[in-house]
Amino acid sequence: MKNSLQVPDPSSELLQRALHVRRASTELGQTTNEKRCNALTCMADALANRANQIVESNLVDLKNAVSSGVKDSLLARLKLDKKKLDNSIDGVRKLALLPDPVGVRQLNRELDDGLDLERITVPLGVLGVIFEARPDALIQIASLAIRSGNGAILKGGSEASCTNESIMSALKEGLSKSDIQETSLCLLTTRKESLGLLRLDGLVDLIIPRGSNELVRFIQDNTRIPVLGHADGICHLYVDEAADIEKSLNIALDSKTQYPAACNAIETLLVHEKVAASFLDKAIPAFDHAEVTLLGDETSLLFGIKQKAEDSDWSTEYLDLTLSVKIVSSLEEALEHIRRYGSRHTEAIVTENHETAKRFLKTVDSSGVYHNCSTRFADGFRYGFGAEVGISTQTLPPRGPVGLEGLVTYRYFLRGDGHICADYASSVRYFTHKDLPL
Amino acid sequence: MKNSLQVPDPSSELLQRALHVRRASTELGQTTNEKRCNALTCMADALANRANQIVESNLVDLKNAVSSGVKDSLLARLKLDKKKLDNSIDGVRKLALLPDPVGVRQLNRELDDGLDLERITVPLGVLGVIFEARPDALIQIASLAIRSGNGAILKGGSEASCTNESIMSALKEGLSKSDIQETSLCLLTTRKESLGLLRLDGLVDLIIPRGSNELVRFIQDNTRIPVLGHADGICHLYVDEAADIEKSLNIALDSKTQYPAACNAIETLLVHEKVAASFLDKAIPAFDHAEVTLLGDETSLLFGIKQKAEDSDWSTEYLDLTLSVKIVSSLEEALEHIRRYGSRHTEAIVTENHETAKRFLKTVDSSGVYHNCSTRFADGFRYGFGAEVGISTQTLPPRGPVGLEGLVTYRYFLRGDGHICADYASSVRYFTHKDLPL
Repeated sequence: MKNSLQVPDPSSELLQRALHVRRASTELGQTTNEKRCNALTCMADALANRANQIVESNLVDLKNAVSSGVKDSLLARLKLDKKKLDNSIDGVRKLALLPDPVGVRQLNRELDDGLDLERITVPLGVLGVIFEARPDALIQIASLAIRSGNGAILKGGSEASCTNESIMSALKEGLSKSDIQETSLCLLTTRKESLGLLRLDGLVDLIIPRGSNELVRFIQDNTRIPVLGHADGICHLYVDEAADIEKSLNIALDSKTQYPAACNAIETLLVHEKVAASFLDKAIPAFDHAEVTLLGDETSLLFGIKQKAEDSDWSTEYLDLTLSVKIVSSLEEALEHIRRYGSRHTEAIVTENHETAKRFLKTVDSSGVYHNCSTRFADGFRYGFGAEVGISTQTLPPRGPVGLEGLVTYRYFLRGDGHICADYASSVRYFTHKDLPL
Repeated sequence: MKNSLQVPDPSSELLQRALHVRRASTELGQTTNEKRCNALTCMADALANRANQIVESNLVDLKNAVSSGVKDSLLARLKLDKKKLDNSIDGVRKLALLPDPVGVRQLNRELDDGLDLERITVPLGVLGVIFEARPDALIQIASLAIRSGNGAILKGGSEASCTNESIMSALKEGLSKSDIQETSLCLLTTRKESLGLLRLDGLVDLIIPRGSNELVRFIQDNTRIPVLGHADGICHLYVDEAADIEKSLNIALDSKTQYPAACNAIETLLVHEKVAASFLDKAIPAFDHAEVTLLGDETSLLFGIKQKAEDSDWSTEYLDLTLSVKIVSSLEEALEHIRRYGSRHTEAIVTENHETAKRFLKTVDSSGVYHNCSTRFADGFRYGFGAEVGISTQTLPPRGPVGLEGLVTYRYFLRGDGHICADYASSVRYFTHKDLPL
């Protein structure tokens, strides 16, 4: 697939810059927790000192964006006022309070007398980050990288270029006052460079996209570097025949309307036919009041839903106040629908029948499977991770909301005193395989 | 990249078969440890009952292979006599003794009163396995799959087709006597099907290739499904200026000659110039005696190595009794060579200087980094994992030798009683984030 990528080879200048980040990251990966935390403080201080300048740069970007006629929703994401910036700076300082993800001993085993195996977490190396409009993402991801001992190559949206350069200049000033090399972070500015970033296999260990589903899908399809994240979030809520109607209604409303643009908001409501009448009788006016458009399958129209859903609705992530509704005749039909259309993000069941809940939780293979609560809980902060790197819908770990642990891997360290394998093959020596305290 | 794959779309027949395995795997993933262990016993018994038939089928394959003039090394791998089969059957029974990788609770946290989050290991789903000649790989991987609650679609080499069909028929007979569905396992027989397998994204969760570097590379380049394994194993041994010469010699010989075809055997020896004379003085005759061909850089020729290494030698995995040798003037030069040519598998240093060892272990970013012992220890059984699924050279976990843990992932289970996010956003309720015993 390497030869058929739709993106160009990285330029030699980009390769050089990436190599500098890689070298800096090798040193960064060996620094103590204390030095990395101190670097975060220096970065936060520098951002605070340059706050006015950053906000002014943002005004320039906003002015340009307005004159090129961008949408209001984009303007809202692009805007970085003093308050939003202060929040971001606060986030940088809070990262220093989280437990160090680096240097955690996961395995400590004597293989034989004098031959000791350890498995210890280490940084991934270099992160490649591609984000759209929001300039606060630059602050967040750069500080997550430093916290976890990783270098980072970052590419922001062109709409935010003045703000991003201003932020990066502050971050580097902060690093220059710490023991961490400035070249640990690198900001790319052109689109050509961001495409080249996708081809830096061997120099970049993980790509983190922050942006639209289209951006994520393009990146997944055009790089061999692992990508942390997800394109679609098509989450389902199933209201079972043994559901408490009041709970169902609250959970359905929260799952859809608490923040409809989030990936963990539901797009489809599955309702068991036995409670369809009693549930929809209350739900239709409630959703109407919340300005949610309901699109229903044939059967649901009999229960008062006005608009008919198309086949394509079952695989559409609306990201706004629209919800598709389907009446099912059994738990198994709900499970089959989820298996077919779900994106393995988060699905929930409302039921008072614990056997039914158990079957649902055991069968649905999404990263989050919930009973009697809102899908909106699928979030690193709500899970208590302190920081969220992203939400992954892939099967392999890390999946679901990913905290700092997504930015580290491990190495096996084996220390001996001249130990060789031939001695074990010829039964001169024997493995003891004795686990030692971690 | 999806559209530019060089492999055809799966046939509708293959899709149907894959769907059956997927459905069976959903049930298999919910079975108890006891039932899965019992299935292993049934599979082992059926293999033992049909041992004569399997060995006879193998004779047919061997006869065909001989008449089509295949190489001796391939014949050796293809051969499955009673003794080799008995060993394989023993391996199936031993898998039942390993701890269950499924159902391990990794996180148990109260998010709030009555809102409980668990993270529990679950099977991946369906494994896609493509292996060359060795029919015993079929037995091993099918039993690893059942042990870990996964379905498997397996494709063996055409040279072993009679043996593989005979084995699969025994495995299915075994499953039919257990509580696990026979359709959990499926054997593909044509090359077209094995190519289609690479396109079963969404139905197959992990591809495990067992075969040549070329096979692995082809698979990695032609599927979007994650691949567990590695193409190259270019391992290095660095003999430092503070090395004990006797230890260095033993470790170098073991790392190269104990089993030269293994991925964890060294391909390049880096020797510090200060010990080059004393080390090579003993090493050259010792390697000569072990029939190892040494290919050296310019400087090493001055110390008595006869053949010159080409540039391409530094990135060649010989997999036989050939070893490239380079004289370096510092630890940093050795590190730079490894960074440039290593495949991030396993590298070792021999030194009595603990500071130097520490720098080496901290800097080299291979999955295994060793001090004063042979690279040949990089192996799941030697690490005490009981079973080895493969060795991964990627950065992200699982890396290095991977045991059963490589065949499971996890899901987050959240149980509430009508809990909604709006209550936390509006400070009606607060998260407690209290960790409970695992």
